Amino acid sequence: MTKYGFLGIGIMGKAMATNLLNAGFDVTVWNRTAAACRPLVELGAKQGKTAADVVAQSDITFAMVSDPEAAKALCFGKDGVLEGISEGKSYIDVSTVDADTSSDIYHAVKANGGRFLEAPVSGSKKPAEDGTLVFLCAGDQSLYEDAVDALDVMGKKSFYFPRMGQGAQMKLVINMIMGTMMTAFAEGLCLGDKIGLEKTDILDVIGQGAITCPMFQLKGPLMMEENFAPAFPLKHMQKDMRLALLQGDACSQPLYTSSAANNAYLKARQDGRGDEDFSAVIKNL
Amino acid sequence: MTKYGFLGIGIMGKAMATNLLNAGFDVTVWNRTAAACRPLVELGAKQGKTAADVVAQSDITFAMVSDPEAAKALCFGKDGVLEGISEGKSYIDVSTVDADTSSDIYHAVKANGGRFLEAPVSGSKKPAEDGTLVFLCAGDQSLYEDAVDALDVMGKKSFYFPRMGQGAQMKLVINMIMGTMMTAFAEGLCLGDKIGLEKTDILDVIGQGAITCPMFQLKGPLMMEENFAPAFPLKHMQKDMRLALLQGDACSQPLYTSSAANNAYLKARQDGRGDEDFSAVIKNL
Amino acid sequence: MTKYGFLGIGIMGKAMATNLLNAGFDVTVWNRTAAACRPLVELGAKQGKTAADVVAQSDITFAMVSDPEAAKALCFGKDGVLEGISEGKSYIDVSTVDADTSSDIYHAVKANGGRFLEAPVSGSKKPAEDGTLVFLCAGDQSLYEDAVDALDVMGKKSFYFPRMGQGAQMKLVINMIMGTMMTAFAEGLCLGDKIGLEKTDILDVIGQGAITCPMFQLKGPLMMEENFAPAFPLKHMQKDMRLALLQGDACSQPLYTSSAANNAYLKARQDGRGDEDFSAVIKNL
Amino acid sequence: MTKYGFLGIGIMGKAMATNLLNAGFDVTVWNRTAAACRPLVELGAKQGKTAADVVAQSDITFAMVSDPEAAKALCFGKDGVLEGISEGKSYIDVSTVDADTSSDIYHAVKANGGRFLEAPVSGSKKPAEDGTLVFLCAGDQSLYEDAVDALDVMGKKSFYFPRMGQGAQMKLVINMIMGTMMTAFAEGLCLGDKIGLEKTDILDVIGQGAITCPMFQLKGPLMMEENFAPAFPLKHMQKDMRLALLQGDACSQPLYTSSAANNAYLKARQDGRGDEDFSAVIKNL
Repeated sequence: MTKYGFLGIGIMGKAMATNLLNAGFDVTVWNRTAAACRPLVELGAKQGKTAADVVAQSDITFAMVSDPEAAKALCFGKDGVLEGISEGKSYIDVSTVDADTSSDIYHAVKANGGRFLEAPVSGSKKPAEDGTLVFLCAGDQSLYEDAVDALDVMGKKSFYFPRMGQGAQMKLVINMIMGTMMTAFAEGLCLGDKIGLEKTDILDVIGQGAITCPMFQLKGPLMMEENFAPAFPLKHMQKDMRLALLQGDACSQPLYTSSAANNAYLKARQDGRGDEDFSAVIKNL
Repeated sequence: MTKYGFLGIGIMGKAMATNLLNAGFDVTVWNRTAAACRPLVELGAKQGKTAADVVAQSDITFAMVSDPEAAKALCFGKDGVLEGISEGKSYIDVSTVDADTSSDIYHAVKANGGRFLEAPVSGSKKPAEDGTLVFLCAGDQSLYEDAVDALDVMGKKSFYFPRMGQGAQMKLVINMIMGTMMTAFAEGLCLGDKIGLEKTDILDVIGQGAITCPMFQLKGPLMMEENFAPAFPLKHMQKDMRLALLQGDACSQPLYTSSAANNAYLKARQDGRGDEDFSAVIKNL
Repeated sequence: MTKYGFLGIGIMGKAMATNLLNAGFDVTVWNRTAAACRPLVELGAKQGKTAADVVAQSDITFAMVSDPEAAKALCFGKDGVLEGISEGKSYIDVSTVDADTSSDIYHAVKANGGRFLEAPVSGSKKPAEDGTLVFLCAGDQSLYEDAVDALDVMGKKSFYFPRMGQGAQMKLVINMIMGTMMTAFAEGLCLGDKIGLEKTDILDVIGQGAITCPMFQLKGPLMMEENFAPAFPLKHMQKDMRLALLQGDACSQPLYTSSAANNAYLKARQDGRGDEDFSAVIKNL
Repeated sequence: MTKYGFLGIGIMGKAMATNLLNAGFDVTVWNRTAAACRPLVELGAKQGKTAADVVAQSDITFAMVSDPEAAKALCFGKDGVLEGISEGKSYIDVSTVDADTSSDIYHAVKANGGRFLEAPVSGSKKPAEDGTLVFLCAGDQSLYEDAVDALDVMGKKSFYFPRMGQGAQMKLVINMIMGTMMTAFAEGLCLGDKIGLEKTDILDVIGQGAITCPMFQLKGPLMMEENFAPAFPLKHMQKDMRLALLQGDACSQPLYTSSAANNAYLKARQDGRGDEDFSAVIKNL
């Protein structure tokens, strides 16, 4: 029976590891502050002493941390992932990191005889709990095939792309569209409101038509009640917009609406809304 | 039994009147070129000699024509709607026209003792055939209530707004968001393509996530095969963008992404794509 | 000796008429509130009882009022310009009005046997006093030729365009470039400030290079001390931007930076800066 | 008598060194391809064998090369500047490079006991020949003071900023404004042309007003005759726009018109105009 590791028991990691345990998988967990592991141990998880230990004891280890810096520290730091990697060990980073970070980790894991997959997810807390995440994978294809059972437990769909970095790039493209759509949506709500339409009516009409989408359905009512509790912080959306625009710049691709949306997010950051949900962009319109 | 009239048997009107007939309604039809009425007569429709005749013989008459000029000609012209209006007659214009045109027709119909509803639709050929249109109504509320059975046969949902013109305004707001979303979507597809992602993969990933919507599902594959047969002509989308931006201008509402999208549609018009589908905006990116 | 009339003795009109008088021209003046004429009478001007009187007694009458509404009232109102027009009388409106207003006045003056010139000016108070305005004329060419001596006294340069309305259109194009340049300038000052450059240094460097212009030289120091006393009110600049964008829309001309600048001015209006100088756009960056 | 070195005898370097020689300065020159030095030797220059030799034999050595890579190769390569630096030697790089490159060179020169100044210039071929460049200096203030005689010969004005990197940053800010102004200017010319105004008239009117500047005066007539021979290549302008936008992004500064202008330059690059003059942006409007 395949042994799984899971590093990083935050909001996302806890939900994902719980789904693995509930599906009967053998899982060893670790977190920087050990107490976060307790609920999973109660569900039957083993607890590792260090990240290196977990990797060494498992066949396939997942990691879910907050950003590229944390991903690098976890991999290259003392008692980190790399110290546990040897022939036959596999590492899957489901954090959202840039292509360079992925690539650095990939080469280090390979150099130590292991296999690696970048697998950033589309979806946040609710899909993580419901097991309906989407995985955007690139790296060792054989590892993707070996891990697909576990991915299917945690998500509703996974994709494999042939070149390292393409998982991260796909996520940037999706988030760029998402960020621009949110700004367009906010512009429509503000314009409608100014000319005397009810925001609830606008949401209802959108909900019946060709542009209805889960994001508008979920965020629309929250935006109307000015609830901007961060599901996806605005500063992270702005960062993704910037990275996508830089990709566009590198290949001479003009991005008219996306750069306009980026300015709207920058204005919101300037006004101190970076830690609110990205839908708070509506407050600056 | 309520007698219905239907003026304007084009692509949309034919589908809508067919649904009324199939549901057992009593319908008298009229079209500028009479031959277009034949298939409906075969389904049981009566055929009127003039628009005025249809209005005079019916309780509630619908009209579906292409633009404000046609709507005004139909109403105010010789043998037109107005000549048939008298106490107790009702007229519902489901064409997409500007607020001034609606208002002119409304006042003329009222002055002759009739009732009026503007009821532009959200949805094009397919929803018309399937009876899944959405009606955005404003005008005489009692007429809305009397007509709701017929609206329910032709559409899946109808809205009533208290002030004349709000149906048209709602449609502009929705189309502005739609036009900007299409441009953002096209930017994402182009960027992804340039950096080596497969467009089919991008569509698949979008289809699994928070921004999936009927428009992306329908248009995405057509755009990939460069099929820009006009379901909604680009020049009409650009016109709606312009009108929405002017509404924003009038109430000091900046519209960052929408004005950027408008420029993209203008560029496409400049390059001669006005008669293609509005998704052809991708060709200029 | 040619007899001149001058209607509208505001800030601009007073300066312009003063220059005519100082150059020895025969001038009859009129203002809605008669007291404003006193300083000019002291310089040798005659004073007319009504606008119609001035036109009837003069060969060529100038008018300088604040906007299209005032221009129409002056022309078509009781005791207005039109009542004084007859064969051989000439009227030159140097106010800034839209092409439709110009055209209405033109046709009315022609119908009464007179000649007409639209002649909006480039330049505000200081150039009016210094006699360094620029006149953008269109209409009756023979009148342009007859008036050129007077124009040369009030301005440093005048242009004649063959088609009525082109004076107004030229002014819109110039103001569109000006409004966008101001926004770009403000963006540069804000960016420089944020990254630690002194605004005075930025102004000095600009002043030495290829982009130095009278506007930056004049407005830059005022903007640094947050002096936004209106030489050209922001709401008027925004209106001109809107009109220019509409011209672009009508001929399928995308205007990328200009529409972005328009949004910046709209945001400034939304924040209540419409009556400040247009350079106050920097406050919203 | 102070001994000067000059490295890099291209279009700019040749003009600058010629001015030093004509003013009677003692100058030793060097170029990667030695033949380019001949005209200067004929004017009285000595010729060095390597960059290191020139630095070692001179008190103050200038360098003018094309980009950051060339600047680093010249400094750190075999027989390069660094090998010639010792206590008392001074190095002034007048190339346009990014702040990181400047900083690397600065620290290396200081570590070897020398003094360093970054001094990018504002102005291209003509001002270099006329001795009317503007120098944007940062680094060792004592070196700035020692070099000011030479700077005054080559330029009309020089600025000293206290922090290393500020010369480069100032240049980015200026070029961002310049790039956006050019796009706004091009939009105005295109709009005017479409609505029936003569481009020559537009240039004439601009030339008389508040926005007239050397760039419009110089580039306008060339743009009208579609002469886009590169004085400043479009791809370099776009690169500077990108770098400026990234600076804005880093300090949450929205840059509305500048990002719109950047898209216009990107579109021009996409269409293969990167090597034309940056004024060729008008071709994509």
